[in-house]
Parts: sequence; structure tokens; C-alpha cells
Amino acid sequence: VDREHAAREVAAAAGDDAVVPARELDRYAPDSSGAPSARPLAAVRPLDASGVARVLAAASRLRVPVVPAGGRSGLAGGANADGASVVLSLDRLDRIGAVETGNLRLTAGAGARTCDVQAAALAAGLFYPPDPASLDRSTIGGNVATNAGGPRCFKYGVTAEYVLALEAVTADGRIFRTGAATRKNTAGPRLAQLLVGSEGTLAVITEATLRLVAAPAARLAATARFDSLERAGAAVAAVVASGLVPSAIELLDRTCLELIGLSGDAMLLLEVDGPDAARVRADLEALARGLRDAGADALATASDPGAVDELWRARRGLSDAFAAAAPDHLFQDICVPAAAVPDALRGIAVIAARHGLAVPVFGHAGDGNLHSTVLYDAAAGEADAAQAAEADVLRLALELGGTIAAEHGVGLLKRPFLARAVDPVALELMRAVKAALDPNGILNPGKVLP
Amino acid sequence: VDREHAAREVAAAAGDDAVVPARELDRYAPDSSGAPSARPLAAVRPLDASGVARVLAAASRLRVPVVPAGGRSGLAGGANADGASVVLSLDRLDRIGAVETGNLRLTAGAGARTCDVQAAALAAGLFYPPDPASLDRSTIGGNVATNAGGPRCFKYGVTAEYVLALEAVTADGRIFRTGAATRKNTAGPRLAQLLVGSEGTLAVITEATLRLVAAPAARLAATARFDSLERAGAAVAAVVASGLVPSAIELLDRTCLELIGLSGDAMLLLEVDGPDAARVRADLEALARGLRDAGADALATASDPGAVDELWRARRGLSDAFAAAAPDHLFQDICVPAAAVPDALRGIAVIAARHGLAVPVFGHAGDGNLHSTVLYDAAAGEADAAQAAEADVLRLALELGGTIAAEHGVGLLKRPFLARAVDPVALELMRAVKAALDPNGILNPGKVLP
Repeated sequence: VDREHAAREVAAAAGDDAVVPARELDRYAPDSSGAPSARPLAAVRPLDASGVARVLAAASRLRVPVVPAGGRSGLAGGANADGASVVLSLDRLDRIGAVETGNLRLTAGAGARTCDVQAAALAAGLFYPPDPASLDRSTIGGNVATNAGGPRCFKYGVTAEYVLALEAVTADGRIFRTGAATRKNTAGPRLAQLLVGSEGTLAVITEATLRLVAAPAARLAATARFDSLERAGAAVAAVVASGLVPSAIELLDRTCLELIGLSGDAMLLLEVDGPDAARVRADLEALARGLRDAGADALATASDPGAVDELWRARRGLSDAFAAAAPDHLFQDICVPAAAVPDALRGIAVIAARHGLAVPVFGHAGDGNLHSTVLYDAAAGEADAAQAAEADVLRLALELGGTIAAEHGVGLLKRPFLARAVDPVALELMRAVKAALDPNGILNPGKVLP
Repeated sequence: VDREHAAREVAAAAGDDAVVPARELDRYAPDSSGAPSARPLAAVRPLDASGVARVLAAASRLRVPVVPAGGRSGLAGGANADGASVVLSLDRLDRIGAVETGNLRLTAGAGARTCDVQAAALAAGLFYPPDPASLDRSTIGGNVATNAGGPRCFKYGVTAEYVLALEAVTADGRIFRTGAATRKNTAGPRLAQLLVGSEGTLAVITEATLRLVAAPAARLAATARFDSLERAGAAVAAVVASGLVPSAIELLDRTCLELIGLSGDAMLLLEVDGPDAARVRADLEALARGLRDAGADALATASDPGAVDELWRARRGLSDAFAAAAPDHLFQDICVPAAAVPDALRGIAVIAARHGLAVPVFGHAGDGNLHSTVLYDAAAGEADAAQAAEADVLRLALELGGTIAAEHGVGLLKRPFLARAVDPVALELMRAVKAALDPNGILNPGKVLP
């Protein structure tokens, strides 16, 4: 009862119009991961950074756990509420400032949707490259807090490389700015880059100034099917070594292909973009030659935007195919050194066979970022096997010199594995940093650090 | 005497063969900045991370300040010793591991010279882009600790974007690894990226795993002279907006040109590189058209490596020209939003005139990173005016929305200005992080944070 009273006081600090009605609270419990969640004690949707600051000041004083949330599209449970927390939704901080074309940047509120930021940049002839799959729902604040990736990272890098400066609020409710809205900055410790990927555990991001690049004038794509994973892996290595830098190198394995009605052991989907059509066409032709030399069976190229979208459709249809194929799933987000991709794919196939479960794999092969998905039926008693299979996949990633979380963060789901992935001394330093920035432990407790 | 005894004990922890003889200690006092320094109590050159750990454990126990140092090529006094400290030189940790071509990476000791890392990558057909001017002497550890830049950052980004993982030693002497040797990693707070640019104040970096890219097969360059800074600034903006991404966009102002015997109000030096000669030539031609359209008076293009070097010679000759022109100088490293470059250049000219001093400006114009250098003669009583001019330049950078330190760090020289450049709340958080990672304050005290 005391906790409920405290939560109400924290919520009230946001202002009456910012408190979510009790009947809507269930919507503020889960993200998109399927990780455990519970209806929070309260949820607030402040209008601005001042509102965020008032909420955090009250939460800090009353020691009420706060769960920052954006578009709730995360896949690790990072924004999931429990029954003791107040959800702090940043979705109303969705202002997108004018695109500064001369300075190649824009400033967006944490609640601005990724797709809207991309559209604003494009309307000014510029480009915001990070493209997480959920970009129609995900927010810039969430993208920054998880250091979101996407297919285009092979050429353009992850969200961190586009964050110039941040506005954020400390655990005890003080608004601050950090970073500089310039391409280079070495004025003091890199606090802004520490907040990137911190999943709401160190401060609450309210606004980001983002670097933009010139928009590519042309974009073409190709798919190539292979009769062995080895050949597909070798083709990826050949492309990477060629010096050509496709904007995406996506891989789908046999199980994925089966689920979407295609044959073959592996398919690559490659996209190239650039400042002029002739050059992009030349790149695509060079790519196609390389893929043929690497043993591609069937090669399809797309020479107009509609055809490019068509090639991506299969890739985008995977989530639905997984959902249709099994009632439950566990999603992995490993990254291995590029040369270890074939080993990882073979290893995952062995794990799937060992546990008697389907584990389709797709991913951003150029980066070594593989998304395996353990398909299972909890009602049929497969939950334990599924969890064992996930643990095996994460162990495999570490054995291959990789990481257990590439572009979706740790959240709740990967937290039990973090101590295995991080050096124990480094983990101690991470805890010291957390204690320094959130001494009362109210920011997203129970997430990320074990 | 007690302090001297403690320093000797700290030095001895490195092992007898790692202690610098007393007669050589003066060499371990200054970096290349001209900032105040004093002969340290001792200096050590450990052979490996274990030696570094022993030194730090002893220093932590005995509360002896430690100044980590690499190639001593810094321009902010970050590696400068004072009379109470022990210098911890990482120069013997200079091992460069095998280039992993399939994984596009290599691992180098903190003491490996930047040029040797670049050469190792090139010998394997790969490329390590960061190119600080001092790369013949600077070390990878120093580059990472200052987040070093260079002309190529416009296309390739700063050192931070090439750091995948680090080995480092805590203030109390524990070796740890952090980051992952993969392109993407979201497994826990970004400790590795926090150590980047921390100038030896948070931990001592002993090894870095660096991302490499495909080596450009061709490189061409052009210079363009302009009869007004406005035109040169507009030309930079036009190039940036064109979507072409030169590997360098350097600017020299009238004072620089005079010092190296050239005329004109401004000169741009642009370099393009890429995977094939035909494409790079096409890029250079497109650039040249853009520069002519933007009002360039005299355009020179270099079509072979020798001619490219020739064009860079003038740019590289600036430091010598400054040294010849005045006995003393103060070097600035500001970064402003790209569109503010003309305002910054005009403002610096006004400041120079106000203080009656020559302040030549060159810089990485595409990034908005300008290096002004206040030339003066301390013996002629110009030191106060020079310092006032520097303060004015830094204030101007902040007024234009920029930063006081772009690629050379804060060290000693910019420390008095940091509180003006950083949000007071952010500064408090930076201090909390420093206290969390170096609770006894032995790591490079008196540097960076005021």
C-alpha cells in the first residue's frame, strides 16, 4: 500500500494530464520480446524534459523504481515493467527539429519515431542510416538507449556513430546536455557515448542531436542462392574483401528459406546504394560477378525501387513466418567475427538437432550479426529444451569470440548470460559506474547488469 | 623524501629492467604541447600488462600519482609529468598481432606506433584510417586515449569508430578486457567507449583490437585557391552537399598561405580515395567541377601518388613555418558546426587583429575542425596577449555552438576552459564516473576535469 501511494505521488509529479489511466496500464507492461512483465503501479507520459525531471526527482526521493520506455519494440525486455515500478514513457517527447542541411544534423525528441526522423532527413535531401526492423514503431530514444543496428550497419555503422549530443535527465531529476553537436569532440569524458546503449539504467535520454549524411541517390539489390552454407559464407568474405561496401549483406539459412517457401541451403540479399545511378549499377554488376564466381546458383537483381522492395519482402516476411510456424519463440542476437559465420551457422544447426527444435537463422552476415530464433511450443512441454538451446547458442557465440548481444541490448532476457560474456573486472567497473550515476538504483533496476 | 621513497617503490614494481635511469628522466616530463611540465620522481617502461598492473597496484596502495604516456606527441599536455608523479610509459607494449583479413581487424599493444599499425594493415591489403599528424611517433594507446582524429576523419571517422575492444588496467592494478572484437556489441554498458578519449584518467589502456577496412586502391588530390574565405567556405558546403565524400577536405587561410609563400585568401586541399582508379578519377573530376563552380581561382589536380604527396607538402610544412615565424605559439583545436566555419574564420581574424598577433588557421574544414595557432614572442612580453587571444578563440567556438577540443583532448592546456564547455550537471556526472573508477585519484591527476 505504501508503495502504491509512493508510485501515485511519483506519477502525479508528471502533471495530471500526463498520468496514464489505470485501465490502460496493461499496455505499459511488456515490450515486443515476450519476456516476463507485469502491470506497473503507474505509468506517466510527460510532455517535456521538465516533466521527466519532476518524475525522476520524486522517484529518487521516494525510492520508486522507474522503467523508461519508448516504442516498446525492444526484443530483450529492456522496457518491461514489473509490479513494483512506474513506467516513464517518453513517447510524447516526439518533436523533430528542423533539418540543418549545412551542418548535416537534426535534433529529435526521445519519443520521435525512427521512421519519422528518417523521413524528415530525406525530405531535406539527407539520410539517417540506422534502420532497426521496428523503425515504424521504435523511437530515437529507444534506438539510442539500445544502440540499435539494422541491415545498413555494414556500410553505415550503428546508432552510436550518429549520436552527436544528448539531452538527458539524471536519476535524481536534473536535466543536462552532453556531447557536442560537432563531428569531433574530445572535451571531457565521453558521457554521451556512455549513455548510448545504457538501456535506461544510467540516465533518461530526452533528446538526441543526430548526424546525417548525404542521401544516396540510387539503390539496387540482388539476391543469390547457394547450395551450401560454406559457399554463402565464402561469398560474403569475398564481397567484404573486394573493397565494395554494399549497404546490406543479409543471409537467410535453409530453415528460413523453407518457412517462406524457397529452396536452397542459403540465400544472400545484398543492397548497394550511392550518389549516382551509374555507379550503383556498376557496383551491383561487380557484386553479381563476385557472387557468381563464389558459386551462386540463382541470381536475381533488382533495378528499380519496386523490385528492390520485392527482394526485401521475403526477408521482412520472416517474423510472420516464424509466428505461423510455432506458438512460441526465443530470439537470439549474437555477433561473431565475420570469418566465424559459417562455424556459427553449422553450430546452430547442431544445437537445433540436439534439442529437436527448429532454429532458423537470418542476419546481417557482413557484420557477423546472426539472429537465430528457437521455435517451440510451450504447451507441448518444449520450454526447457528451447531455453537450453538458447543457452547453447549464446555459449557458441562466446566460444567463437563473439558477443551475446549485438544490436538489441541485454534487457531482461540476456541478463542471466552477461556475467559469462563480460570480464569480471569489467563487470565490477560497470557496476561502479552504475552506482555513481544512479546511487539509489531507481533507474530500470533488474535490467542489464546481473 | 617520503614521496620519493614511495615513487621508487612504485617504479621497482615494474621490475629492474623497466626503471628509467635518473639521468633520462627529463625526457619523460613534457609532451609536444609546450604545456608546463616537470621532471617526474620516476619513470617506468613495463614490458607487458602484468608490469603495468604491478605498477598501478603499488601506486594505488602508496597513493602515488601515475601519468600514463605513449609517444609524447600530444598537444594538450595530457602526458606531462609534474614533480610528484611517476610516468608510466607504455612504449614497450608495441607488439602488433597478425592482421585478421577475414575479420577485418588487428590487435596492437598500446605502445605500437600508429604508422606501424597502418603499415601492418596495408601489407595485408587492409587499411587503418585514423591519421593524426604525428602518426610517425604517436602510439595506438595514445590515439585511443585521446580519441585522435586527422584529415581522413571526414570520410572515415575518428579513432573511436575503429576501437572494437580494449585490454586495460584499473587504477588499483587489475587487468581487464572490455568491448567485443565484433562489429556490433550491446552486451552491457559501453565501458570500452568510455575509456576512449579518457586521457589516462579512468584506466590505463594496454592493448586495442582495431577495426580495419578494405584499403583504397587509388588516391587522388586537388588544391583550389580562393580570393575570399566566404567562397572557400561555400565550396566546402557545396562539396559536402553533393554527396561525394572526399577522404580529406583541408583548409588553409591567408596567413598560413603567406607563411608558406603562397598567395590567395584561402586554399582547399581535397583528397579522394576509393576501390578503383577510374572511379576515383571520376570523383576528382566531379570535385573539380564543383570547386570551379564555387569560384576557385587556381585549381591543381594530382593524378599520381608523387603529385598527391607534393600537394600535401605545403600543408605538412605549416608546423615548421609557424616555428620559423615566431618563437612561441599556442595551438587551438576547436570544432564548429560545418556551416559556422566562415564565421569562425572571420572571428579568429578579428581576434588576431584585436590582440595584434598573427593567428594562422588551418584545419579539417569538412568536419568544422579548425586549428588556429597564436604566434607570439614571450620574450617581447606578448604572453598575456597570446593567452587572451586563445581564450577568445575558445569562447568564439562555444558561441558558435562548437567545442574547445576536437581531436587532441583536454589535458592540461584546455582544462581551465572545460567548465565553460561542459554542462555543470554533466561535469558532476563525469566527476562521479572518475571517482568510481579511480577512487584514490592516482590516474593522471590534474588533467582533463577541473
